[in-house]
Amino acid sequence: MLKSEIKTALDKGKATQTVYDDLNFVRITDSSGGLRRGTAVFDAGTVYGYPRIGRVLALEAGLAEQFAEPFWMEEKIDGYNVRIVRVHDQLIALTRGGFICPFTTDRIPDLIDTSIFDKNPNLIVCAEVAGPDNPYLEGGPSFIPHDVRLFVFDLMHWNQPGFLPHANKIQLQERYGLPTVRIFGRFDISAIPQIHEILIRLNDEEREGVVFKEDSERNHRAKYVTSNSNLSDIRALAARIRDLPPEYFTDRILRLVLFLHEQKLVRTEELDRQLGAAFIDGLQDSIAQFLSEHKVYHTFRCRFRSRENAMKLIAHMNQTAGHVKIHRRNLYQEQGYWLLEFDRMYPALNGLLSHLLSGGLMID
Amino acid sequence: MLKSEIKTALDKGKATQTVYDDLNFVRITDSSGGLRRGTAVFDAGTVYGYPRIGRVLALEAGLAEQFAEPFWMEEKIDGYNVRIVRVHDQLIALTRGGFICPFTTDRIPDLIDTSIFDKNPNLIVCAEVAGPDNPYLEGGPSFIPHDVRLFVFDLMHWNQPGFLPHANKIQLQERYGLPTVRIFGRFDISAIPQIHEILIRLNDEEREGVVFKEDSERNHRAKYVTSNSNLSDIRALAARIRDLPPEYFTDRILRLVLFLHEQKLVRTEELDRQLGAAFIDGLQDSIAQFLSEHKVYHTFRCRFRSRENAMKLIAHMNQTAGHVKIHRRNLYQEQGYWLLEFDRMYPALNGLLSHLLSGGLMID
Repeated sequence: MLKSEIKTALDKGKATQTVYDDLNFVRITDSSGGLRRGTAVFDAGTVYGYPRIGRVLALEAGLAEQFAEPFWMEEKIDGYNVRIVRVHDQLIALTRGGFICPFTTDRIPDLIDTSIFDKNPNLIVCAEVAGPDNPYLEGGPSFIPHDVRLFVFDLMHWNQPGFLPHANKIQLQERYGLPTVRIFGRFDISAIPQIHEILIRLNDEEREGVVFKEDSERNHRAKYVTSNSNLSDIRALAARIRDLPPEYFTDRILRLVLFLHEQKLVRTEELDRQLGAAFIDGLQDSIAQFLSEHKVYHTFRCRFRSRENAMKLIAHMNQTAGHVKIHRRNLYQEQGYWLLEFDRMYPALNGLLSHLLSGGLMID
Repeated sequence: MLKSEIKTALDKGKATQTVYDDLNFVRITDSSGGLRRGTAVFDAGTVYGYPRIGRVLALEAGLAEQFAEPFWMEEKIDGYNVRIVRVHDQLIALTRGGFICPFTTDRIPDLIDTSIFDKNPNLIVCAEVAGPDNPYLEGGPSFIPHDVRLFVFDLMHWNQPGFLPHANKIQLQERYGLPTVRIFGRFDISAIPQIHEILIRLNDEEREGVVFKEDSERNHRAKYVTSNSNLSDIRALAARIRDLPPEYFTDRILRLVLFLHEQKLVRTEELDRQLGAAFIDGLQDSIAQFLSEHKVYHTFRCRFRSRENAMKLIAHMNQTAGHVKIHRRNLYQEQGYWLLEFDRMYPALNGLLSHLLSGGLMID
């Protein structure tokens, strides 16, 4: 059954044969039948993809509409999603897309107590990796001053698309001292005032938001993000205004206004200023960078235990960058780690600025 | 030759047979061969489309790159483009797309001295119509407090795709006292400081910008808009954030930052605030409108001399609205005119708010 599903996905171009070191696996690139995007199929079994979580923009109506049972409210961290598993004797971290991430894989022993896999070889640890020194995202939560940290939010088992129930998750997390996201409690719809209070605090602390998880068999989820997280997304990615889908920006503006409305926050001149500044800061910096260096780019840095994994990350980046250009800047040893620095250059903004600043016309 | 071009355009679906009263004509809907979009082909001859004018975003480099000869600098008015012509004995106004506009056509005698066509039946008057009471654009220049005004900026002849030379244009405009856009002078690239000064003044006065027209046979053009005009566009259309291409907004943010850079204007907190407010004001109003009236819409009003033309405008709006819904609100006599009020409703924002405010999930 599963074998035929995989064959169908491969035939339809919705899956691809992938090799990493001596691991061969099939990576699902587009959801197909019961196989979600990001699912990785090894000879040893299947690691199901982490499902997308829908977003509510109207909190009160959203909770009432989405949840029939009480739900857990957990913090959502602004990082990238990984699934950590042991395949044969090798610990690896899979990204959302089902790639093996050379950076996270390299750093697993720094991030969690790996002995959990000795007793639970069937386990999949689902977590967010966040911090300024990561290879994917520009910036990170302000409460992580350097390097990266890992925050577990779900556990899964091999060959099963669903999650472990909340109680089992907590038990394993506690036993192995796994670093986890904050859990604010188990609520039902009558707790809206408390939920609002937590969200206002998270917004003030410039945290990203929360995920609600129904405490039931179906374990239905919905996420909700703060106004300030929309601002920080815009600020971080303004230089990519021509390289990302423009909805990236307009959707965040809309979410920000809906958050204000929903939280009954008074709209202030300071918020107006922050929204304008989020765009203008990033773009002014890009133009200044273009004028002094003739290109717009962002430099990423991250630490590796092994030099080989740093080289693998660069190869992975080149493979997945799409139209973005990757430029390796530096690789040197520092405090027992290999420090890799590389640039991501944004071709659309570079092309546009180059055309316009040399006097070209824009037809629109 | 032209006949075969028209036939080709019709065959390729780049032109369409159009009827308005007893006028039959072919309207070019996509540029095809030598026929620009908006060209209208009558039995009496061809009214060529008004060409698109490219935009420079870097003024100094742009003028140096675009112009080999001195150029005229004229004000650009924030309205809609029309070509007024006499076909047989009937005065009509064609829109940019080559439709006959029932509103502008109705109001021609209020807007210009039509005797110009008695002596110059071959003339095409190219002009911007602007003001708060127009059927196409939300808002208008702040210096026009009510109704609409017309500003001539070019003259053409039937059957010719080009423009009359500057001197001939001025002569005719003066002889018939045509209302025109402001002409700031004839400059060359050495006049950049003066040009900057005019632009800063226009920005302070919240004017839209300027068009540069080379004083030469080829009559090449380029436009340049102020930072404040980008702000007022965003403010006016924030409620259409899901119904317009999102680039509409991100491009204006980019232009605004390039204007600051180019004009060496100091970026202020007030500007940041205005940019943020431009989005937040419009969206908060839309949400409030949705909550109280269960839909987001904008009410347009315009005056007609004849009731019949008001009915024709509604028909024209329904024909060209695409996914936008038109709702006729009111039509009554006031001070010798027929006053038409109608709503344009934006389905994408309405659909999204309806989904989200009732608790629906957004998957992104």
